[in-house]
Amino acid sequence: MRVLILGIDGYLGWALTLRLIRRGHEVAGIDNFYTRKAVSEVGSDSALPILPMSERLRVIEEVFGAKVEFVEGDVTNYELLKKVIERFRPDVVVHFAEQRSAPYSMIDVEHARYTMINNLTSTLNLIYAIKELGRDIHILKMGTLGEYGYPAFRIPEDAFVDAVINGARDRIVVPRWAGSWYHWSKVFDSYILLYANKLWGLTITDFHQGPVYGSRTRDLISDELFTRFDIDDVWGTVINRFLAQAIIKHPLTIYGSGHQKKGFTSLEDTVTALTALIENPPSPGEFRVVHHYREIKTLNEMAELVRRASIKVLGYDPGVTHIPNPRVEPEDEVMYEPERRVLPKLGIYGLSRIMEDEVEVMLRDLARYRDRIDKLRGVIMPRVRWRG
Amino acid sequence: MRVLILGIDGYLGWALTLRLIRRGHEVAGIDNFYTRKAVSEVGSDSALPILPMSERLRVIEEVFGAKVEFVEGDVTNYELLKKVIERFRPDVVVHFAEQRSAPYSMIDVEHARYTMINNLTSTLNLIYAIKELGRDIHILKMGTLGEYGYPAFRIPEDAFVDAVINGARDRIVVPRWAGSWYHWSKVFDSYILLYANKLWGLTITDFHQGPVYGSRTRDLISDELFTRFDIDDVWGTVINRFLAQAIIKHPLTIYGSGHQKKGFTSLEDTVTALTALIENPPSPGEFRVVHHYREIKTLNEMAELVRRASIKVLGYDPGVTHIPNPRVEPEDEVMYEPERRVLPKLGIYGLSRIMEDEVEVMLRDLARYRDRIDKLRGVIMPRVRWRG
Repeated sequence: MRVLILGIDGYLGWALTLRLIRRGHEVAGIDNFYTRKAVSEVGSDSALPILPMSERLRVIEEVFGAKVEFVEGDVTNYELLKKVIERFRPDVVVHFAEQRSAPYSMIDVEHARYTMINNLTSTLNLIYAIKELGRDIHILKMGTLGEYGYPAFRIPEDAFVDAVINGARDRIVVPRWAGSWYHWSKVFDSYILLYANKLWGLTITDFHQGPVYGSRTRDLISDELFTRFDIDDVWGTVINRFLAQAIIKHPLTIYGSGHQKKGFTSLEDTVTALTALIENPPSPGEFRVVHHYREIKTLNEMAELVRRASIKVLGYDPGVTHIPNPRVEPEDEVMYEPERRVLPKLGIYGLSRIMEDEVEVMLRDLARYRDRIDKLRGVIMPRVRWRG
Repeated sequence: MRVLILGIDGYLGWALTLRLIRRGHEVAGIDNFYTRKAVSEVGSDSALPILPMSERLRVIEEVFGAKVEFVEGDVTNYELLKKVIERFRPDVVVHFAEQRSAPYSMIDVEHARYTMINNLTSTLNLIYAIKELGRDIHILKMGTLGEYGYPAFRIPEDAFVDAVINGARDRIVVPRWAGSWYHWSKVFDSYILLYANKLWGLTITDFHQGPVYGSRTRDLISDELFTRFDIDDVWGTVINRFLAQAIIKHPLTIYGSGHQKKGFTSLEDTVTALTALIENPPSPGEFRVVHHYREIKTLNEMAELVRRASIKVLGYDPGVTHIPNPRVEPEDEVMYEPERRVLPKLGIYGLSRIMEDEVEVMLRDLARYRDRIDKLRGVIMPRVRWRG
């Protein structure tokens, strides 16, 4: 298949590219390198060294004998996006070209606006380009399970759900409640995609995951193929920050009570799921919602897991401490079990990597780059506060 | 009170200014004159002649002996907005500074993007400026009843509502389903305001109305005080288009079956309600949802009403015809009765103007400007199609 990846230089974009190439797909990509710039804006860098795109493309050719078409540019530029789609004629466009950090979106008004405008503009441009150039092109969009908040009901894997309100039964859009401007931009994206589906019959997969962890997939067979790995307070997920703290012998800092639950997935399983969704598109005109998470854990459980792995792999106990939560989020134990039916139907179920093992792999990878991480010591503790 | 009006040059902004001044409030306003430019972009103009802002301010001073502080500028410019709020120190900011036309938002990708970015940026800037400068300043935001779509349940006048979903009871955000990019931008605005309220305790009134009609309020005591009156396919509401067609002896063109229901309110009643909400702000930190509509009518009923008024006032029957609906909207009779409790509690209930009378007033005003309307003959029939 012909796959166009918006945001090909990112953590998922790059890892997915390697998998698709190895499976014989033709891949093209666009990136404006915004994540590289914005990570450096907050004084940070990828903990694992990543090559510039020109080098990445060379290594891919050397290692896998495959060419990836790359265009440096911004998908908020409609003409550019349209031109690339027109030329490459993809079967599917995978949309990762969004500002993906919740803390980044909460820094101040400029960052809130950038997140909202960049994410909504890229999505609007994409649906209009597809409407113009070929309504049969499948859009696979990265969302987040964070769109739903923490409702009391089981979250359906569908755009709509039956509800009884004020005594009347109705079919409503699945309710959402986001916890940052970043998450709200994703909620708005979902509505924009759903409306485009109803209006123009576009074929869409709205894919929702929780945090993704991992420094490896089975395609990442050399350090030169590394995908980025962020560990700072703004761009790093909770598990990556814990790992970095373990490396520099800093107690693992849990935001608040640590009872917050999240549904985690390894990079390997994420790439496998994305590939399955690409190779098994929805029916023409279908709006397919897909949930994907492998292990539901509280932050306390995560910290304990990293602490134990540190003792085993690094030979010491970094300790664990609780700090005031810079975010505004529920800290009590909440039900959290979104429906998952689509991926099992495609034969994707079970864990191929379990977190216990993967945490050790990551610690070993990171330990080799202890110097890089030591230099980032100052950017791991939270600097952005939700209440301003 | 000190009232800052964002979008003071618009249909509601201007009419509200006159009322507030007459009630002794101090008024300042910002406008970028975008509506004037965008109306001319689609080949149209206000059917009733309106003065440039400098003249408007002069007339206000002559007629009412009051000064209005005016700043020409764009509230998507954060520094400008902040500076004006800092200097004027309003008790309340009334936010009309949004692209307000559904067809305009559906023209193409540029207009979709402009609508989304302008409306969300202005709202984000406003909440951040208020958070910075004084969280006690009341934000009164113009929304639309169109945010809700046409649900089967009675629409609660609240941000949240109890619902049973998948067998579980939960309190969810009132579900919404919008019918254009413009309407979606308003939905997103509502969520942004609600999140700002929860996060920072901002004091907000989210005010939802249906279409507003009328060429007069009791403050519009001379033609020099006219507020704009749009009749074209993009900027004119259905009632205004019918009136213009009656004036030029064109059959009134109903989109589709004409069973679509809308909740209308006169300009006079709108200005009265807005003034009551300004003079009676919510409690500090409260998020107050307010619904306002006076008469629920189908398009067919509206057309019949204009037809009868035309016979009486103009002496002829323009006739009525149905044309294919350029919009995508339900055309069957739907339940449509959003809750209204806040305004009655403030002593605002009952109609001060009824549509039958007001339609005649409008026809008389418009008949004096038949030549202007005749020149706009070419821009009344729909040119924008939702399906593209």
